[in-house]
Amino acid sequence: MSRTVDQVRVDVPEAARWLAGRVARTPVLRSPVIDELAGARVLLKAENLQHGGSYKMRGALRSVGRLAAAGHTGVIAQSTGNHAVAVALAARRHKLAATVVLPLDASPTKIDRARAAGARVVFAGTDVQERVALAAELSDDTGHPVVDAYDHPDVIAGQGTASLELIEEAERAGTPLDALVVPVGGGGGVAGACLAAAGTGIEVYGVEPAGCDSLARSLAAGERVTVAPTPTIADGLRPSCVGELPFAIVRDAVRGVIRVDDDEIAAAFRLLLMELKVVAEPSGAAGLAGALRLAPGNGALPDRRRTVGVVLTGGNVEAAMVARLLAHGAAEAASAQGPAGATTAQGPAEATAAQGVAA
Amino acid sequence: MSRTVDQVRVDVPEAARWLAGRVARTPVLRSPVIDELAGARVLLKAENLQHGGSYKMRGALRSVGRLAAAGHTGVIAQSTGNHAVAVALAARRHKLAATVVLPLDASPTKIDRARAAGARVVFAGTDVQERVALAAELSDDTGHPVVDAYDHPDVIAGQGTASLELIEEAERAGTPLDALVVPVGGGGGVAGACLAAAGTGIEVYGVEPAGCDSLARSLAAGERVTVAPTPTIADGLRPSCVGELPFAIVRDAVRGVIRVDDDEIAAAFRLLLMELKVVAEPSGAAGLAGALRLAPGNGALPDRRRTVGVVLTGGNVEAAMVARLLAHGAAEAASAQGPAGATTAQGPAEATAAQGVAA
Repeated sequence: MSRTVDQVRVDVPEAARWLAGRVARTPVLRSPVIDELAGARVLLKAENLQHGGSYKMRGALRSVGRLAAAGHTGVIAQSTGNHAVAVALAARRHKLAATVVLPLDASPTKIDRARAAGARVVFAGTDVQERVALAAELSDDTGHPVVDAYDHPDVIAGQGTASLELIEEAERAGTPLDALVVPVGGGGGVAGACLAAAGTGIEVYGVEPAGCDSLARSLAAGERVTVAPTPTIADGLRPSCVGELPFAIVRDAVRGVIRVDDDEIAAAFRLLLMELKVVAEPSGAAGLAGALRLAPGNGALPDRRRTVGVVLTGGNVEAAMVARLLAHGAAEAASAQGPAGATTAQGPAEATAAQGVAA
Repeated sequence: MSRTVDQVRVDVPEAARWLAGRVARTPVLRSPVIDELAGARVLLKAENLQHGGSYKMRGALRSVGRLAAAGHTGVIAQSTGNHAVAVALAARRHKLAATVVLPLDASPTKIDRARAAGARVVFAGTDVQERVALAAELSDDTGHPVVDAYDHPDVIAGQGTASLELIEEAERAGTPLDALVVPVGGGGGVAGACLAAAGTGIEVYGVEPAGCDSLARSLAAGERVTVAPTPTIADGLRPSCVGELPFAIVRDAVRGVIRVDDDEIAAAFRLLLMELKVVAEPSGAAGLAGALRLAPGNGALPDRRRTVGVVLTGGNVEAAMVARLLAHGAAEAASAQGPAGATTAQGPAEATAAQGVAA
């Protein structure tokens, strides 16, 4: 579960020990309806209930904690939102100054939360390169280090602790995981999941929005491939390229990448809300959408006795988006057969081939 | 924590031991935003994440389990929804037949869930007397006992285990409860809470919708008072009269009853959804609405260092209701100051006197 990649040490169990008591031990949730749809036992790790509303709190606390211990007085972060909020909260906990760089189209909820945590918020364009450039400039000006959202060993180790807890809790419940499904933005979470699952025989799958599939393309090409992300409701899964360190970790460890579309993410969102009574952000719901794509009949997992773990990575979503996703479901239900219509109705062979399991 | 009321033994700790491993140990959630609004540390016991979507599962499993052990082959229940769903699920687990009597205007979600659990669903009018009469008739016809939704020692003991877990978890976290707030329908939950809190010094408050305040009026009158329930979004809190056994338990034990209106319940619903990322049904959110009424400035709890426990009793709500409550919030935010506008903007002295803490 710890691994050295080009001299970089990423130690998930060590991060888990350090984070114990510093983050919430989030619950693992289940629903008979979801099990039925997935054709498997699905265990969902509710990191939307984590401090700061996402599992990004784990990596942020771990890395900011180390920087504070090393004597730094401030930190800088850039992200589409959750990592920035998490770094702001982590910095406040360690009494460090925080500056966060957000895109111009960042979700108002995430902007408000970063500010409420006491961070200085600055905006830079809409793509990751613009944010990275401004963060580097601010770092040069202030001397404060940048905490990268995914290309950072402490962040990957921290994110991996969510998967590690899920693996342990599944084991303790007598239903050890056969597969683990994690949404992919820059790849920090899936890299952490691969490390947490190393040596266990658990198959790790990443999930990407269909038009934001840098990891799937990179795995196919054998090297990192940059994509021009297409619009998706999963605002946290839009990086144009998977991180260097995450890719080095996952390239030989991940079982595959599942591509999902916005309809599938919206259907997963509604299942989580109506069946599990929790609110996920679309990026967080993407993991369940991926797990449902693994269902028997979709070509990947033939065995209903399997146990599939899913990390619900976050829950920071606008009220307007919640209402929109629910209204979308109502419109769909009128023309299909209920909340899971999008998932099951959408599986002709072409769609499965085009959007199914890669690598 | 166990009490004998007119020869009826209600033993919460014994029910807790029996239920351990049979129900989910639901998490206790917190939010800095909610703490700020309440002027207290607020610990929320998320029974909306319980099996069956509500804490009613506890009392139903306990009572149906005993009936199964006594050799019964079927059970009958009546309720506005959650108790019926819980009894249906409990009966299925114990391989008993279940017939549930619902009102004609029952929420479609609850009807579907009762049917999905294998229960026979029959409908009777819209008030409790009609359902009680039909349940008694069905019991006479079949010989199957009625599991009352609240006037039953095993149901009260089962419901009380949610409060007991919250009390224990608060203690373990080093933040023992000063007050415990529970929504009141027929009074089973608040009676269980009073028993769970007996001898601890914890003040127990019930919460009733303003026009469905049978317990508040009964406490004032010194005897059970039937009301004509006015419409409320909290469909689970509409019984016209508090149960006989619950009233006998709570009359000298409860600290007071807090009356809340639909705007306050809706504001609490939105706080739970946006801050805690969980979906409560309006009846479940009523507890938080009550706790916010206890806030300093609303005249009851002057001390920010207090710790207040709230039982989020259930989460079985229609998608359309979720959308409606969110839309209501958006309209409100446009003319007020954000999600808590209803709670804070609504506190002139008259309103506090009319809707504040009774008894």
